[in-house]
Amino acid sequence: MVVSCTRGWCARFMDRHQSALNFALLVVGYILYLLIGAGIFSAIELPYEQEIRRELREAQQDFLSNNPCVSEARLEELLARALEASNYGVSMLGNDTNRNWDFVSSLFFTSTVLTTTGYGHSVPLSDEGKAFCIFYSIFGIPVTLFFLTVVVQRIMAVVTRRPVSYFHRRWAMSQSKLAAIHATCLALIIALLFLIIPAWIFVSLESDWDFLESLYFCFISLTTIGLGDYVPGETHSKEAISHPTLYRLAITIYLLIGLVFVLVVLETCCELPQMKRLSHRFYQEKVKE
Amino acid sequence: MVVSCTRGWCARFMDRHQSALNFALLVVGYILYLLIGAGIFSAIELPYEQEIRRELREAQQDFLSNNPCVSEARLEELLARALEASNYGVSMLGNDTNRNWDFVSSLFFTSTVLTTTGYGHSVPLSDEGKAFCIFYSIFGIPVTLFFLTVVVQRIMAVVTRRPVSYFHRRWAMSQSKLAAIHATCLALIIALLFLIIPAWIFVSLESDWDFLESLYFCFISLTTIGLGDYVPGETHSKEAISHPTLYRLAITIYLLIGLVFVLVVLETCCELPQMKRLSHRFYQEKVKE
Ligand SMILES: [K+]
Ligand SMILES: [K+]
Repeated sequence: MVVSCTRGWCARFMDRHQSALNFALLVVGYILYLLIGAGIFSAIELPYEQEIRRELREAQQDFLSNNPCVSEARLEELLARALEASNYGVSMLGNDTNRNWDFVSSLFFTSTVLTTTGYGHSVPLSDEGKAFCIFYSIFGIPVTLFFLTVVVQRIMAVVTRRPVSYFHRRWAMSQSKLAAIHATCLALIIALLFLIIPAWIFVSLESDWDFLESLYFCFISLTTIGLGDYVPGETHSKEAISHPTLYRLAITIYLLIGLVFVLVVLETCCELPQMKRLSHRFYQEKVKE
Repeated sequence: MVVSCTRGWCARFMDRHQSALNFALLVVGYILYLLIGAGIFSAIELPYEQEIRRELREAQQDFLSNNPCVSEARLEELLARALEASNYGVSMLGNDTNRNWDFVSSLFFTSTVLTTTGYGHSVPLSDEGKAFCIFYSIFGIPVTLFFLTVVVQRIMAVVTRRPVSYFHRRWAMSQSKLAAIHATCLALIIALLFLIIPAWIFVSLESDWDFLESLYFCFISLTTIGLGDYVPGETHSKEAISHPTLYRLAITIYLLIGLVFVLVVLETCCELPQMKRLSHRFYQEKVKE
């Protein structure tokens, strides 16, 4: 008797607070996903990091013992200077003739900031530059979001809504099933066109990138993470690319168009009836006032 | 006669293709905004970059002339090694005891990748790490977007919809005017709480950041640009922060919560009736089939 009563209360409680419970589960699940990811990264990377640190220390000791006139303090001072400048994207190496702030490089910087990719391979050095960067992005990022939204909506009319409604009429298949199949195919095509094929191209253009590194660059760029460890045309040991300016311009355009199509896929997935049902399970119950 | 006829045709053409014309204007305007930004950045930064390059060359020449036993080639080799490692976030300096891949640092990395901030102050070094980063983000970023959307929706019910409908009933003001005033106030409050006040706090915690640099860090982080030139707890010349692990954890949480509230402001602005009217001027005319 008590049990069934409790069950009844429990069921009513569950029913009333279903979305709050779902939400709590989502929060816990997400934190777990973060923690597990952190654990795996730590397990994979920590040994590599220690190995690189050991090699660097050895290289430095080697240099000092081969050049006995150099004091360690003096060398550390020079290194500190070189590393600080390198953190802001300026290299001490003599053979590095890259300019970070000629017009096309500035355009590349501007477009990566506005799309929030922000590689950080070059950053504003002066206070004026930093202040202008804040001011420029405060307007620029919302405008970019607006611009991308409009472009994505216009493209979706052609690549999503029209084909789905066409096949719906033609095959008399359920709209939601058809939309799911369409979204999957679209995602695969976009991945091929904007990840796999560009990665192949980068393998041949960037002399020291292998396929995984090229794919990693394309993926990290089109998701707007932009870690900046791989940036085309920045590798120091490169054989000169014949038209560096044109190359950088082409990459700027590739990144913008690629981002638009990634957003098309994302928006197509968000508009799936299945996704809408799913997200409404986590939303707050309507406020009754 | 011809003129009025042409005008009539022109007016009909304008009328029919109004949104396409608006869209073309938007594209041109956006490209102009990019070009002007690039020009200004180039004008501000190029002299600074040249100055820093000149200083670096001088420092290197100075070092070579003070240590005549060192050959330039040998020094460049060591520098190239140091700079390459620094590009992947590993410093050659002896006093740099930061670990990039202990658990809390990995957690920081994980959360900045999933929110697409991606400072790049530390990056996966190994092929396994890069592959796992792609795999982890392919699922993680959509889940993060979903998670953030749900959280933002729940917060908006409290901070946007409830107050606007309350004041609408109370003051009998037009809903769209009220929504605009509310969005402005909300944006100012969030900017104060998550930009200005944290910037002040960072000035006192990070010994070599001034207010502009702190504000620049907060802004670049919360917009998810994440250039990575300023990352708390990474400055080499720091006086040791007493609890670096706790500090990094606190920053992870600040960045997540800050991002949520920036998205609340953004979504509040997107839902303004004025914004909806504006964006529909650029959307494609309904496809008649
Ligand atoms: K980013
Ligand atoms: K970034």
